[in-house]
Amino acid sequence: MLETINTPKDLKTKTIKEKEELATEIRKLIIEIVSKNGGHLASNLGVVELTIALHSVFDMPKDKIIWDVGHQAYVHKILTGRKNKMHTLRKKDGIAGFPKVTESEYDSFNTGHSSTSISIALGMARARDLKKQNYEVVAVIGDGALTGGMALEALNDAGCSKNNLIVILNDNEMSISKNVGGMATLLAKLRGKKFYTKTNSTLKKTLNKIPLTGKLSVKLIQRIKRGIKQLFIQKMFFEDIGYTYLGPVDGHDIEKLENILKIAKSIDGPVLVHVITKKGKGYLPAEREPDKFHSTSSFIIETGKKKSNKKDYSRVFGDKLVKLARENKNIVAITASMKEGTGLAEFAGEFPERFFDVGIAEQHALGLAAGLAKAGMKPIVPIYSSFLQRGYDQIMHDICIQNLPVVICVDRAGIVGNDGETHQGIFDLSFLNTIPNLVVMAPKNFEELEEMLAFAIKSEHPIAIRYPRGEEETIISNKKNKIEMSKAEVLKDGNKMAIFAIGKMVAKALAIAEQMEDVAVINMRFLKPIDKKVIIKYGEKTKAIITMEDNITVRKLSRHSTKRFKK
Amino acid sequence: MLETINTPKDLKTKTIKEKEELATEIRKLIIEIVSKNGGHLASNLGVVELTIALHSVFDMPKDKIIWDVGHQAYVHKILTGRKNKMHTLRKKDGIAGFPKVTESEYDSFNTGHSSTSISIALGMARARDLKKQNYEVVAVIGDGALTGGMALEALNDAGCSKNNLIVILNDNEMSISKNVGGMATLLAKLRGKKFYTKTNSTLKKTLNKIPLTGKLSVKLIQRIKRGIKQLFIQKMFFEDIGYTYLGPVDGHDIEKLENILKIAKSIDGPVLVHVITKKGKGYLPAEREPDKFHSTSSFIIETGKKKSNKKDYSRVFGDKLVKLARENKNIVAITASMKEGTGLAEFAGEFPERFFDVGIAEQHALGLAAGLAKAGMKPIVPIYSSFLQRGYDQIMHDICIQNLPVVICVDRAGIVGNDGETHQGIFDLSFLNTIPNLVVMAPKNFEELEEMLAFAIKSEHPIAIRYPRGEEETIISNKKNKIEMSKAEVLKDGNKMAIFAIGKMVAKALAIAEQMEDVAVINMRFLKPIDKKVIIKYGEKTKAIITMEDNITVRKLSRHSTKRFKK
Repeated sequence: MLETINTPKDLKTKTIKEKEELATEIRKLIIEIVSKNGGHLASNLGVVELTIALHSVFDMPKDKIIWDVGHQAYVHKILTGRKNKMHTLRKKDGIAGFPKVTESEYDSFNTGHSSTSISIALGMARARDLKKQNYEVVAVIGDGALTGGMALEALNDAGCSKNNLIVILNDNEMSISKNVGGMATLLAKLRGKKFYTKTNSTLKKTLNKIPLTGKLSVKLIQRIKRGIKQLFIQKMFFEDIGYTYLGPVDGHDIEKLENILKIAKSIDGPVLVHVITKKGKGYLPAEREPDKFHSTSSFIIETGKKKSNKKDYSRVFGDKLVKLARENKNIVAITASMKEGTGLAEFAGEFPERFFDVGIAEQHALGLAAGLAKAGMKPIVPIYSSFLQRGYDQIMHDICIQNLPVVICVDRAGIVGNDGETHQGIFDLSFLNTIPNLVVMAPKNFEELEEMLAFAIKSEHPIAIRYPRGEEETIISNKKNKIEMSKAEVLKDGNKMAIFAIGKMVAKALAIAEQMEDVAVINMRFLKPIDKKVIIKYGEKTKAIITMEDNITVRKLSRHSTKRFKK
Repeated sequence: MLETINTPKDLKTKTIKEKEELATEIRKLIIEIVSKNGGHLASNLGVVELTIALHSVFDMPKDKIIWDVGHQAYVHKILTGRKNKMHTLRKKDGIAGFPKVTESEYDSFNTGHSSTSISIALGMARARDLKKQNYEVVAVIGDGALTGGMALEALNDAGCSKNNLIVILNDNEMSISKNVGGMATLLAKLRGKKFYTKTNSTLKKTLNKIPLTGKLSVKLIQRIKRGIKQLFIQKMFFEDIGYTYLGPVDGHDIEKLENILKIAKSIDGPVLVHVITKKGKGYLPAEREPDKFHSTSSFIIETGKKKSNKKDYSRVFGDKLVKLARENKNIVAITASMKEGTGLAEFAGEFPERFFDVGIAEQHALGLAAGLAKAGMKPIVPIYSSFLQRGYDQIMHDICIQNLPVVICVDRAGIVGNDGETHQGIFDLSFLNTIPNLVVMAPKNFEELEEMLAFAIKSEHPIAIRYPRGEEETIISNKKNKIEMSKAEVLKDGNKMAIFAIGKMVAKALAIAEQMEDVAVINMRFLKPIDKKVIIKYGEKTKAIITMEDNITVRKLSRHSTKRFKK
């Protein structure tokens, strides 16, 4: 079936049965590609039917879809003329793992970080209405992303607006029974504008009709009734803040999805469509462990086993933290929905009461850490470098102005490769360097990360330790120097030239120095406060100084002009 | 009465009547001090009774209050031993305008930016419970601050927790009638744990008892019924996300406040107390125009007129924007709840459909701008420099990576004086300088701001223009040079020394050069992309280079050790 789909227009003539066939083929393709190239698997398997329904009901690229986070856009890419290039996914000059406006006119906006879609979509809807244009704007956002402050701010604003805007809540958490979901879908169908006011009484009547005996057990009925109460509250919450609420609908039933999307299109003002999907749908290992298959390296399809399972910085951090936490009861760990990714799974298992997963909420994670630190705990907060940009003000205002001893672990720092420009950790040395009272360190290898973590936990300052994604580099040196505040480590003396390196660049500096004569290599360890003495010493002693850090330097203006929507 | 209050303990023995007398005296004192020193007036007048009630019911400093935003802590400061120093408010070495842990043990945490209190309070509550300590934690947050993403993230997390925590929602917007408020308070009183389940039916019965004839008009009844429906939904929303909801209560009735706070104290888990207050309460000019008396310069008490009403950068920006918007229909303006402060009032009046106040929501404001720009509009987003820190990731990820032509106006940049360390705009040149594709400019005076704004609006790049608070400096120069991308302006030639200055420092540079011989003064205009040619030229030509910018340079570690709570 897939061979007949070159643009979304080709979908319009297909039957539901043919689309279901297509869904199976798309799933197979995605599993194949991700098993080879790595990438986001569970989220894409969850939205196959939803994406088919969206492209069936809406007219892209005239209509716009904003994919929140963007990692679930593989199906969209396959349906919009990129199926034959999908084997280049996440490779150099290949298909990006996220929507890219430069890649296709079907990609309406670049996404990568979480919780941005409603803001963006509302901006487009308002621009459209001011310009008196005519197209649909749809934001697709997961229930996880909806915990992010930016999304909640936007949800609030969009609710007050009169602009036509469809927010699709892709909910893969809600574990209500199929009956409830199905019944509610039925009800949602009844609700255009016409039946709108009737819904509540209809629902109540339906509720009363559920037999208290029969095949359904009492427990199940209670669960269903609780579920319905829940639905009522959600419905009322969304309607109270200004949305027409449709759903919940089974996110793997293309026909129901198409029907509800058509209704959504016909309603004026902001609409929220509540779609229930299953992460990893159709691939058992991913259904069972969606967390592990959220973002995965290459794996063996038959078993679901990862092809490589080497130790990485996140795991080294997590293992060491567990050891330190056994000795120090004040250690607590906070994650913004990245328990697995940041290596905190073991900590969470051993110290559940000292572990806090706050959802996708970097700002709150850091504020929470500030409160915990003020009241005597030692909070450790690992966050990916590029997501830490969300917490710049909290690091400054809530943690560092008061000099509170929070340890921020900046994971995925430096160049991270395949995930593209939105995920590079190449700004943290710059933006952390501006923050008063903050100590900024970076280890040269696994062992030094362990030492720095122990050092940071003993310190009374706020400290950021930044480390890269993946494996350690091989260090050609046997030196052992204790970590001391603001003290660099001279790994190799020399008189001709000195290389000041930090973090993973230290290994590269040593490798370069090996091939030259009389070149000193200094592992700076601390970006801030920097070791001025060692700089002055080698500045006087040698003829040239080279610095090596995996962080931006040049900040030229782009030569690309901005692409706006065609008129 | 105030003379008898030296610590909050002195409150405990007072009668309600005495406390009401005290409230009147405190209001008088605050109006006097702010009329002289300037400061936050309306918000402080709104929380006089609430603060008295809080200090009557809780035991500070053992119990902790986190004042969200912190600008409403004057009453708290007066009650906690600082009344005799209040005349030094916002002066050098005087009483700070915000809570400061270094100023008093009664200040539990430094605040200044909005929407942080629930995160901080939850952190403290969790630390207390892990340490098996025994004290209360109270977050006081306004309905405005509750639109901020960080607060919503925290509200979500705190709701799921079992920790004892009291969130006081200081609501000065809700315009429900007094009857409803009163009745609901009555109902709230009935609700300890004991009466908890009875509430709904009680409320329904009470509702039915409201006579449909009599003194109340039908319209009023409808309003009340709507109000109650509203309350139900709010109650259900907060209870659904895990809070025991108490209120709403009249925030100017000390007795009712004390009663409801005592109930709140007795309930396990997170509690939300909904308090209705009036901004500016007790001072007519502030009641009428709470916006203008939110943060005010000195004024005449009798008339409410400002003592000085000089033109400032914000007004120059706002006036010019209106002129430009008359010619360019694509211009839209966005504010994060700072319409007056950023000079957008006139724009909002003339172009209501092109003006968006999104609430205290900097992240969404910038995301919205990105969406608007992508769909063909020209969004202008003025945000105070120190609050712009909240939007660092959105500037990077949503605007600049895609090179979208948004104009960010960085108001209150540089040293802003009296508001203290949390409000200084001394980081923006540093953090904006890290962002790819972004142009960063700063004008030397009002006229140049107008020119830069016109230039920015014509550009296809994202541009930040940063300008200071208040009046312009006097420029000793008659040069007129058109703004050109990345081009500095040589205001005075010289061969001995060159001063490269930017923004408000240009006037100072000229004044210095006046008193010296053969000194060049270059107005850099662009921080990024910087004018390399002019730097090389004067680097070769002169013997010394001096740079002048009102932004941090040295980033030493604090010598203060961190103060944590006493055990």
